[in-house]
Amino acid sequence: MSRIAYFGPRGTFTEQATRALTDGDELVPAETIHAALAAVRKGEADGACVPVENSVEGAVTATLDGLAEDEPPLVAVAEALLPVHFTVVTGSGGGPIRTVASHPHALAQVREWLLVNLPEARPTAASSTAAAAVGVVEGQFDAAVVAPVAVEHYSLDVLATGVADVADARTRFVLVRPPGELPEPTGHDRTSIVAAAANRTGTLARLLAELASRGINLTRLDARPIKGNFGHYRFFVDFEGHVSEPRIGDALAGLRRQCAEVRFLGSHARADGVAATIDSGAGNDVFTGATDWVDAIRRGELA
Amino acid sequence: MSRIAYFGPRGTFTEQATRALTDGDELVPAETIHAALAAVRKGEADGACVPVENSVEGAVTATLDGLAEDEPPLVAVAEALLPVHFTVVTGSGGGPIRTVASHPHALAQVREWLLVNLPEARPTAASSTAAAAVGVVEGQFDAAVVAPVAVEHYSLDVLATGVADVADARTRFVLVRPPGELPEPTGHDRTSIVAAAANRTGTLARLLAELASRGINLTRLDARPIKGNFGHYRFFVDFEGHVSEPRIGDALAGLRRQCAEVRFLGSHARADGVAATIDSGAGNDVFTGATDWVDAIRRGELA
Repeated sequence: MSRIAYFGPRGTFTEQATRALTDGDELVPAETIHAALAAVRKGEADGACVPVENSVEGAVTATLDGLAEDEPPLVAVAEALLPVHFTVVTGSGGGPIRTVASHPHALAQVREWLLVNLPEARPTAASSTAAAAVGVVEGQFDAAVVAPVAVEHYSLDVLATGVADVADARTRFVLVRPPGELPEPTGHDRTSIVAAAANRTGTLARLLAELASRGINLTRLDARPIKGNFGHYRFFVDFEGHVSEPRIGDALAGLRRQCAEVRFLGSHARADGVAATIDSGAGNDVFTGATDWVDAIRRGELA
Repeated sequence: MSRIAYFGPRGTFTEQATRALTDGDELVPAETIHAALAAVRKGEADGACVPVENSVEGAVTATLDGLAEDEPPLVAVAEALLPVHFTVVTGSGGGPIRTVASHPHALAQVREWLLVNLPEARPTAASSTAAAAVGVVEGQFDAAVVAPVAVEHYSLDVLATGVADVADARTRFVLVRPPGELPEPTGHDRTSIVAAAANRTGTLARLLAELASRGINLTRLDARPIKGNFGHYRFFVDFEGHVSEPRIGDALAGLRRQCAEVRFLGSHARADGVAATIDSGAGNDVFTGATDWVDAIRRGELA
C-alpha cells in the first residue's frame, strides 16, 4: 500500500479524484497544492494528486508552478477527469434555508441555480466546499454547495445533486510520483513538458514548429511568466502521444535543442480515451523508416 | 462625463484600477465581470473596467470569455497595472485580533505574512476583500485583508500596508468601450486579438508563424476551450505594436486568412511603457518599402 497526498481538506473534488486514481492506498490531505507536492519530494508520501486545469476557470497555476519550479522533478503517471457537478446539502433539522455556503468559486458556478431554486438564501463564502459542509453540520449555515464525496464524511441531507450552471464543466487531476518506471503506452496518451525560454521574437513559434513539423497534435498550452525573471516565460505544453514512441522522442529531442531548460512532466493514458491523431506520413513507422534510411546511407548501402 | 461600469463591489482593486483609468467619470460597480461588460453592450455604460490577468493566478477567464463570446464586440482602449499589495485593517475598537477575513484568493496571497504577524488570528473566508472590510465595520471579524482603496470607503484602522507574500505580484486591468476611434500609437503599444480555430495539428504553430515571420513579439498567449464545441479552441494573443502600423496590419491580415473567426480586442499603450522590440528588417519602413516595390513592379517600372 502506498501513501498518497492530496490537496485537501477531506470531502472535496480532489479527494474524489484521488480515490478514482488509487486503489486501497492511504490518502493524506495536505493544506495546499505546494504541501501535497512537497510531501512527495520529502519522501513523506509516494505520490500526490492535484488539480491541473478546469474547463471554466482555466489552468491551476499553483500546480503548474509547483511542477515546473521545485526539485526534485515529479512525473504524472495518471489523470482523472471529473465533471464539476455539485451536491447541495442541508442540515438534518429541516427549517427554512436562509444561508447557503461554499467556496466563492463554487458559488459562482451555481449562481443561476441558486437564483431559481433557493432565491431566499444568502450566498455566504467559506474557505472550501468541505468547510461549508462542516459549517452546516455545526449549524453555522443552513445549506452548502459541496462535492458529491462530502456526504460520505458528514451527516447531511441531500437537497439536489448534479447542480452546475455550465453543464459540461470539468476538472482534470493528475497523480504525480518521483521519476521511475513509466506507464505503458496505450495509443491514447498525453505527454506533458514545461520549457523555459527567453522572450525573443518567434521563440514560441519555433518551439511549436518542432511539434507541428512532426505531425504531433497539441492538447494544451499555457504560458506563465517566471517569477523574479522579468520577460522570461515558461511554456507548459501537452500533446498527444507517449515518450516511448519514436515520433514523440524525436520531437522531445528537438525541443531540448531549442530550449535552455526543459522538464518532462509525464506520459500517461488520457482519461477521456481519445486516440492520438496521426496524419499519414507522421506515424512511428515513418520515423523508424527514416532513421533506418540514414543508417543505411552511412553504411554505404543506399543513396 | 461618461459612465464607467467596473467589476465591484466598491473598495476593491478593480475600483482602484478604474479610478486610475478614468478622470471624473461616474463609476458604477457591477456584480460580476459579465454584468460590467453587459452594461456597455446594452448602452447603460460608456465603458467598463475589468481585470485581465494576474501574475500569480494567471488569466481571468471570465474576462477573456466575455470579450470573445458576446455581441457586440468591445475594444480595449487603455490598461492599468496594479501591484497586488494588500492593506490589513482592524476595527477602531482595539482589542485582540482573533479572526482575519478576506476573499480566499487574497488570504492565499498573504498566508506567510499572517503566520508571522497574526499567528493567533483565524483566517476566515469572505466573498470579496470589500465584503471583509464591511464585516470588520459591522464587528463580524476583527481584521480584514483588503485593497488599499477600501480605507477610503470604510472607517477602519490600518494595521499594515504593502502586504504580499510574492512581492512583485501584479494584476492588469483594461478599460473597454464599443468600437470607435482608436488610441494614438505611442511606440510602446499592445495589440490583442482572439482567434478561433479547429484543433488540427499545427494550427497554433501556423498562427504564431504569421507573427514570427514579421518579427512581431508576443506578450501573452492563452488557449481556452470553446464551450459546447468540443475540441475547438480560442487563442488569445497579445503582441507588441499598434494596428495602425503597416507591420501589424500586415500580420492581422495574415491571421484573418488563417482563421475562420478573428476578433480585434484593441491596440493601446502598455502600462509598463516597454517599447516594442523591432528587429532590423522588420520595421514599418521595410513593410511599406516592400509594398511600394510590388506596386512599382505591377506598374512595369521595376523588376
